[in-house]
Amino acid sequence: MPILQHSNPIEEQLLKLLPDDGELTSLLNELWPICRSITGPGFNQSLDILKAIIPFKEDLFASGSWAYDWQIPEEWQIRDAWIKNSKGEKIIDFKKHNLHVIGYSTPVDQKMTLKELQPFLHSLPDQPGAIPYLTSYYNKRWGFCLSHNELAKLPEDTYHIFIDSELKPGHLKTGSVVLPATVKTDKEIFLSTYLCHPSMANNELSGPIVMSFLYRALAKLPERKYNIRFAIVPETIGSIAYLSKYGEELKKNCVAGFVLTCCGDTNKLTYKRSREKNVLNGITESILAKTGVPHKILDFFPTGSDERQYCSPGFNLPVGSLMRSMYSDYPEYHTSLDDRNFVSAQGLKESIYLYLQVIVSLMENKTYVSKVQNGEPRLGPRGLYPQLGGAKETKETVEKMMWVLNFADGKHDLYDVCSRSGFKILDLAVEAHNLKNAGLLTESE
Amino acid sequence: MPILQHSNPIEEQLLKLLPDDGELTSLLNELWPICRSITGPGFNQSLDILKAIIPFKEDLFASGSWAYDWQIPEEWQIRDAWIKNSKGEKIIDFKKHNLHVIGYSTPVDQKMTLKELQPFLHSLPDQPGAIPYLTSYYNKRWGFCLSHNELAKLPEDTYHIFIDSELKPGHLKTGSVVLPATVKTDKEIFLSTYLCHPSMANNELSGPIVMSFLYRALAKLPERKYNIRFAIVPETIGSIAYLSKYGEELKKNCVAGFVLTCCGDTNKLTYKRSREKNVLNGITESILAKTGVPHKILDFFPTGSDERQYCSPGFNLPVGSLMRSMYSDYPEYHTSLDDRNFVSAQGLKESIYLYLQVIVSLMENKTYVSKVQNGEPRLGPRGLYPQLGGAKETKETVEKMMWVLNFADGKHDLYDVCSRSGFKILDLAVEAHNLKNAGLLTESE
Amino acid sequence: MPILQHSNPIEEQLLKLLPDDGELTSLLNELWPICRSITGPGFNQSLDILKAIIPFKEDLFASGSWAYDWQIPEEWQIRDAWIKNSKGEKIIDFKKHNLHVIGYSTPVDQKMTLKELQPFLHSLPDQPGAIPYLTSYYNKRWGFCLSHNELAKLPEDTYHIFIDSELKPGHLKTGSVVLPATVKTDKEIFLSTYLCHPSMANNELSGPIVMSFLYRALAKLPERKYNIRFAIVPETIGSIAYLSKYGEELKKNCVAGFVLTCCGDTNKLTYKRSREKNVLNGITESILAKTGVPHKILDFFPTGSDERQYCSPGFNLPVGSLMRSMYSDYPEYHTSLDDRNFVSAQGLKESIYLYLQVIVSLMENKTYVSKVQNGEPRLGPRGLYPQLGGAKETKETVEKMMWVLNFADGKHDLYDVCSRSGFKILDLAVEAHNLKNAGLLTESE
Repeated sequence: MPILQHSNPIEEQLLKLLPDDGELTSLLNELWPICRSITGPGFNQSLDILKAIIPFKEDLFASGSWAYDWQIPEEWQIRDAWIKNSKGEKIIDFKKHNLHVIGYSTPVDQKMTLKELQPFLHSLPDQPGAIPYLTSYYNKRWGFCLSHNELAKLPEDTYHIFIDSELKPGHLKTGSVVLPATVKTDKEIFLSTYLCHPSMANNELSGPIVMSFLYRALAKLPERKYNIRFAIVPETIGSIAYLSKYGEELKKNCVAGFVLTCCGDTNKLTYKRSREKNVLNGITESILAKTGVPHKILDFFPTGSDERQYCSPGFNLPVGSLMRSMYSDYPEYHTSLDDRNFVSAQGLKESIYLYLQVIVSLMENKTYVSKVQNGEPRLGPRGLYPQLGGAKETKETVEKMMWVLNFADGKHDLYDVCSRSGFKILDLAVEAHNLKNAGLLTESE
Repeated sequence: MPILQHSNPIEEQLLKLLPDDGELTSLLNELWPICRSITGPGFNQSLDILKAIIPFKEDLFASGSWAYDWQIPEEWQIRDAWIKNSKGEKIIDFKKHNLHVIGYSTPVDQKMTLKELQPFLHSLPDQPGAIPYLTSYYNKRWGFCLSHNELAKLPEDTYHIFIDSELKPGHLKTGSVVLPATVKTDKEIFLSTYLCHPSMANNELSGPIVMSFLYRALAKLPERKYNIRFAIVPETIGSIAYLSKYGEELKKNCVAGFVLTCCGDTNKLTYKRSREKNVLNGITESILAKTGVPHKILDFFPTGSDERQYCSPGFNLPVGSLMRSMYSDYPEYHTSLDDRNFVSAQGLKESIYLYLQVIVSLMENKTYVSKVQNGEPRLGPRGLYPQLGGAKETKETVEKMMWVLNFADGKHDLYDVCSRSGFKILDLAVEAHNLKNAGLLTESE
Repeated sequence: MPILQHSNPIEEQLLKLLPDDGELTSLLNELWPICRSITGPGFNQSLDILKAIIPFKEDLFASGSWAYDWQIPEEWQIRDAWIKNSKGEKIIDFKKHNLHVIGYSTPVDQKMTLKELQPFLHSLPDQPGAIPYLTSYYNKRWGFCLSHNELAKLPEDTYHIFIDSELKPGHLKTGSVVLPATVKTDKEIFLSTYLCHPSMANNELSGPIVMSFLYRALAKLPERKYNIRFAIVPETIGSIAYLSKYGEELKKNCVAGFVLTCCGDTNKLTYKRSREKNVLNGITESILAKTGVPHKILDFFPTGSDERQYCSPGFNLPVGSLMRSMYSDYPEYHTSLDDRNFVSAQGLKESIYLYLQVIVSLMENKTYVSKVQNGEPRLGPRGLYPQLGGAKETKETVEKMMWVLNFADGKHDLYDVCSRSGFKILDLAVEAHNLKNAGLLTESE
């Protein structure tokens, strides 16, 4: 478990702000059974649960209204769905697994032969044990998903198909809240996740869960240099709707952002960069590099999750995504195998901690000016020379101080010092605080 | 034959514009026996043959006139040359191979012992079967070239040396023509090759042959964004003379150019970059990378062919050179071994196709602006979502569209999208055309 | 011995300016026994010896006066020091090795048990045969250093401790001199070394010795484009004091500089870059690359020697350091093992030669303008085409001329040509001189 370690007092504090395993598991279990979609009671109920931790304010977008190129669809509600054989046995039951029904399926109540039914049944021949996840938000149709094994066993018969669903004018809902900076500033860090998939764990619930405990931890920080905006939206249409309302504000104020998704397993570490080169990428990568854990850095690409919208040319926000097993990059993705066993309290906690490190590093990435610009300052008379610790610790502490001091010229931020020295921003920040307290540094800008 | 493949309809059309093997071989055979030099009937006769395909206009530069630092030499004509032994047997005969006489040899009719003759005989001890190619344009002298094997066998004897040549005031000739753009523009792509070596194949005839069929193919394109200038000149002195007349025009209008040379064999792929960084280099290299064929990328160096002149500091044109086996980089270079067997219809055709891809990519390298800047546009309602093809093809097509759309911000050209996405410019161009036809894109600038 | 080779007439001349082994060894032996410190008679006596070669002028900084953040300490003098056992035998004797006493030790004359004495004895358990080097300039204390082997053998006894030293107001001294350019210019190259350690060879005497013979060689050059400043200072406090007097001048005029230290052994080649990117780094590295000897290139770091001060943010001078075995990077560093056997005449000579090549390359790094900007100039009629030498030498000479000519556009200096062509600056400079003499080039700026 090398990720949950600290090398400085700041990280030590952040570790203490993590949730315990029970809190994580309990939130996961509470959200798990709900059949979410981009609108409707599943989304609303899930959002209400999360509000216990994050005080989201809601925005409503009426069905039929426009958000840029997109029109808000009708609200979908599903109450029940099944297929019975001629003996009246439920051979597929939505109540057993909500992936069995294609998202946004229209209602149906009909009898069909196996042959007639076949075009409405979807499976994954290559993953015969998995139920696929399918939706059809914009083409009205209905259908069932099941494992290929189940499908193969279906005998000739007359089947009774039943979907008790409803599509009606209503609203698309988003939730968001800004955790204010502790200093006066318009600048903000933007965190976004989605809440629109039925029972899947990594590619649905990991995002909201990580966001929840990130909020709780960040709210406890004594200092926040930036406002931190938390948004929870239905994927794609929801982020576009959200942008239609808050996009201009984000464009003006957002200094860095992340789409939180696929961050609950322990298999991989993946960072998808923002569209433009940004200190955000450098800082995130410097932190991943120091985990000592193998990780993949991907340049921005315009498919994926909501960064597609946030990085659309009209906004081009500095938004990346720090993930574990990335969407499309693990076989369980968008199937019933992306279940509660695929994620773990450990994976979620690691993600929360990594995000905390990145966000706090972004806020600690200050530019300093040393009082002594000519020649180096003396550390001894100011009591800055380390009195405790072995020779190696002393040497490293002095090195970190020297790095911070030499580049405290009002032109280099701590990320520059991190890049040149190889020390972590938070390691350097601790020394910067000491030097500042000793009267040697002031903050620039 | 991986080079002659297509991955999109544009390339498919280009493949159809290639000459057939017979056309290539027939032009090669027609030009082969002529004894060309930088001036004189050999050059003129070869140019006349090429005019059947490219409607070159001629420029004449009088002997003794100046082109920058160079003075146009006298015109050289050779009718016959041989060495007879004392039995009257021709032991070296210009009519058997025109490399036997040093280019620009002065006339001679004289008897000599072997010892007297030796200083006038040139061979390659390291390549004993090859006749070397030598010239002496600016120092008046005469000499014979022969294989080292022949030289070694020459017995003591009295030899009769005869060269029936003539140097007299005349002209140096260049040919050039501009294939006009189909839109109004001053910008041009510049293609130059030379026509001044006797019977050699790769390092002489491959250039004019590739240029000829490039002209024929490009002339058939329904759209050309740039004018395309074709120039055929004697190497060095000819390109300098040409620049003295057209250099300022080129400096103003040339957006990309190539020296066509050594492009007839199938052994290697070599790209020599232009002197300055240029999109030309990036585009050419992106195309070579996608051939899957090993290739060598060389930075500009100021020796080589006519790019030396085009990239001289006063002009510094964006001119590179896409070659197969590069001059000086294959042992047959500048010897009788660079013969018709060294090149092939296959090699010539591949070069024509690669040049076509590069030139069309340069013209397709447009900057687009998407109608939908905020969030992504919907593909489905516009009929852009692929209806045919497997999952992989569909996924790739959508990806290409998404890449084009996300960077259709008026700031990135298709080469930028190619660099970031890894897709070929022409693959992206096809999707850009579709998106434009669907009303989603306009061209910038 | 691949370093002491030449590939052009300039280097050939530089080789002739090197000292012979006897001169090097003799200066080393003369300086070796002196007990130097940052002030006092050891420093002064050493400086006087060096003045026989470099005509240093002295600057004095009074004890108690301030140089930026630092206060000049009192002057230290030591006459004798020893520890005797109860039999009156000297078991540690400063006169046998001046590392036995901590630098700046206060006087003492006292009897102690072994237990009482222990806190004042310093050794290196990991290098039991070495006497460590320790100082305490700013905390008044006394102490002895000895090998761990000696320390381990000390029996219980009553010891007599005696240090006859003195700390009293006086001066810190620096020496410097400017070797004037042979043309009118304010620009200067800055060479700095320190003279403040007792008997150590690589990390003390190599710097002043290399500087001495560099001065002698550079003074003999017929042309120097820049002034060359030589400074010899006590490390840290001395360079800061020196900067307080000459820093503004250096900031205005210094185009390149080096801290000369650790340049006497033959084990490694190390180049520590200046803080900012600078042609100095590129040139030095291009020369190291051509030695064919493995070497280490280190980015600037703010610990080390006096470049810490020269590269402090207020000055940020372009100062690097070309070393052999770098401080802290060899086990003998700061111990009695860094002795006369650790360095060699060969190592010192190689360093002098490398520094000469770098300094002369910096001065030869000119920007030229060719008389012929359009097309290439003809070499033959100007007698520039090489008449002697084999085909390979001729080809390379022509290539070098072509490189120089093509980039003689008033925008590229010889270092640019070196970077692009792979030829050494001094190789190119030789051709540039030839081309200039033939009237083809003028110097820009």
